[in-house]
Amino acid sequence: MNAELIAVGTEILLGDIVDTNSSEISQQLAAMGVNVYYHSTVGDNPLRMAAVLSAAMVRSEIVIVTGGLGPTEDDMTREILAAVTGRPLVQHDGALQHITEYFRSVGREMTSNNRKQALIPQGAEIIPNPRGTAPGIHLTFGRTHVFCVPGVPTEMRTMWAESVVPTILELEGQEAIIRSRTLRFYGIGESTLEERVSDLLHSDNPTLAPYAGLGEVRLRITARAATIEEVSSLIQPIEDELKARLGEFLYGYDDASLESTVAQLLTDSNRTVAVAESCTGGLVSHRLTNIAGSSTYFRQGWVTYSNEAKMRELGVPEALLEELGAVSGPVAAAMAQGALARSGADVAVATTGIAGPGGATATKPVGLVYFGFAVRDGEVSSFSRQFRGHREDIKWRSASEAINTVRRLLS
Amino acid sequence: MNAELIAVGTEILLGDIVDTNSSEISQQLAAMGVNVYYHSTVGDNPLRMAAVLSAAMVRSEIVIVTGGLGPTEDDMTREILAAVTGRPLVQHDGALQHITEYFRSVGREMTSNNRKQALIPQGAEIIPNPRGTAPGIHLTFGRTHVFCVPGVPTEMRTMWAESVVPTILELEGQEAIIRSRTLRFYGIGESTLEERVSDLLHSDNPTLAPYAGLGEVRLRITARAATIEEVSSLIQPIEDELKARLGEFLYGYDDASLESTVAQLLTDSNRTVAVAESCTGGLVSHRLTNIAGSSTYFRQGWVTYSNEAKMRELGVPEALLEELGAVSGPVAAAMAQGALARSGADVAVATTGIAGPGGATATKPVGLVYFGFAVRDGEVSSFSRQFRGHREDIKWRSASEAINTVRRLLS
Repeated sequence: MNAELIAVGTEILLGDIVDTNSSEISQQLAAMGVNVYYHSTVGDNPLRMAAVLSAAMVRSEIVIVTGGLGPTEDDMTREILAAVTGRPLVQHDGALQHITEYFRSVGREMTSNNRKQALIPQGAEIIPNPRGTAPGIHLTFGRTHVFCVPGVPTEMRTMWAESVVPTILELEGQEAIIRSRTLRFYGIGESTLEERVSDLLHSDNPTLAPYAGLGEVRLRITARAATIEEVSSLIQPIEDELKARLGEFLYGYDDASLESTVAQLLTDSNRTVAVAESCTGGLVSHRLTNIAGSSTYFRQGWVTYSNEAKMRELGVPEALLEELGAVSGPVAAAMAQGALARSGADVAVATTGIAGPGGATATKPVGLVYFGFAVRDGEVSSFSRQFRGHREDIKWRSASEAINTVRRLLS
Repeated sequence: MNAELIAVGTEILLGDIVDTNSSEISQQLAAMGVNVYYHSTVGDNPLRMAAVLSAAMVRSEIVIVTGGLGPTEDDMTREILAAVTGRPLVQHDGALQHITEYFRSVGREMTSNNRKQALIPQGAEIIPNPRGTAPGIHLTFGRTHVFCVPGVPTEMRTMWAESVVPTILELEGQEAIIRSRTLRFYGIGESTLEERVSDLLHSDNPTLAPYAGLGEVRLRITARAATIEEVSSLIQPIEDELKARLGEFLYGYDDASLESTVAQLLTDSNRTVAVAESCTGGLVSHRLTNIAGSSTYFRQGWVTYSNEAKMRELGVPEALLEELGAVSGPVAAAMAQGALARSGADVAVATTGIAGPGGATATKPVGLVYFGFAVRDGEVSSFSRQFRGHREDIKWRSASEAINTVRRLLS
């Protein structure tokens, strides 16, 4: 079956909001094996809405309309759907009851405008809206199915997942369950990763799709089947294969991040971390403390930009700074060692480098960053990386490298 | 004149990328007084592209096509434009020369695919692309103007601003210059701000549009006129009026941020800052060091989550921590005082609060944050704020409040 999406709203045409619904819905339709051939956006204007909706209904079997279901006069999706299909609008008692109860529960008065939200074209079904007042509409017209859902992303998402997806899978005669598993990789580029799994990228069920982020890559496996067990048995072999090929770069699954992975490792082993930052300027500490409960494992952080602060706060020897400069392996190691000793943490990480755009020298270009590590009763080490990009990119990539190395030290 | 936008790319229909070009272009067309009635997205398929492009050319005077100008076989915008207008594709010598020179300058070999990027429909004009290989195309067909630009946002933006906007303004018989000025506010909510300027929001030239961010609000004034002087004389009275009404909340203009404003104030006055963070976990330091050249004014940062670190590193008296707890005004003040004294900075800021989701007590809810400030040879002070939202929102809003208060202390 072919699908197309219509986003309704003058505020999208004015550029005041970006339509992210279409992208979210398209991703999921792709994973379900449904082709999406068109996205359209149209304003709150009856003639233009009718033109776009009728054209879509002629050429696609599934039409998803987002927006225009609110209580105001501008909201006219239900009226236009009734008009182009020649069906009268009728009151849906269940919908009216839901709206009435919603207003009672939030203690606000229901206006006559809100009664309008209980109207649907004759012969259509409502799509329950657990998160708001306006129900959605599912209308069958010839071979075409039109699904109208609200434009508010939270309401759309719930109705999409709970009602529209199961209906489309049923229409398609497909098995009823669809699940994704995302594998997250650090330390390998997108093109190298794609090369290593290129033979798996064209499978149909499960599908495998790569996504690139700043300094990391993800692979999403999506499978559909009749039962959870069958879905798992489709996903597992691909996951095992990816682990066999790329395991050394795999750091986590689904919603994990480098910092949440480190947080888990620290919490599980009852250890603590300290951070001494120069070029990353607090970003490593910020990311490690973004995780709820970080006070149990985050011992202390320093942001020591100046040589003076590196000496006074972390005990970096003046001779090292004078001989090698602040951007050097031994200084990074001494910073980590000082942070470990002062804080009493189990592991310490340090960064010192040139985030740019200024500060480069003949031998130390922008993007050169040294990392230092110290482990309680263990070794002190350092290494360097050369990053590219703008100042904020270099800070981000450096912080990722620092956090990833802590992860490897812990695991 | 009426305009519509067509985004070309299967990757948008798959949901792999979000089309932000359409929103950017729409905003600017709205500011130019051009109505946008439709956005469409279509994949790299000749028949469907031809259907969408021809329908658009029938109903709109201005059609903006983004994407499909690359060198691969999938890129077929120029072929389809030639087909639907019945014009043959011809080689544009200037474009070929530009492409050849581009490859020479980056030291890569030019393939035959790239030669294709110099083809345009007969009678069309090229739109120069200073940032890439593919030139854009401007084709006039009857009363309709089609502008094709690349989908890569950096290339699109430059070509749009430098070539397409002036041409559209000329077509419209409008004055040729369009400029925007953005005023940035902190400490006032979006709805309160909108109420205070509601009488100005419906003007036509200049237009005034509000935008809300996390913890801040922007107002953008956009004017068009024949000369820079006239544009300025249109913008200035509105800007003055906004300053008169909202001056106490105004912190900067255009691309400024709270941190860049503080950076400028510190640099101009040759002063330095130190930061002692508990609940913001390094974010204040991170944001202050995102500004290039921050090593001249950023003296030092501490991330002291534990009471122990607050005492040892910043000299916070144990009695205060025991009597009042770490989340209290006197502790925030003592942290700032300690940071100032240890670092030798001119001004110091401290944060201590409950970022959540855990850690709340009966008297100290999630989102309660105390801020401490110390100025060299000046006063030490503290105050509290109650924020809402998730952990990361509370960290961000707290960091903004800390940076904004440093701004007020300096100015």
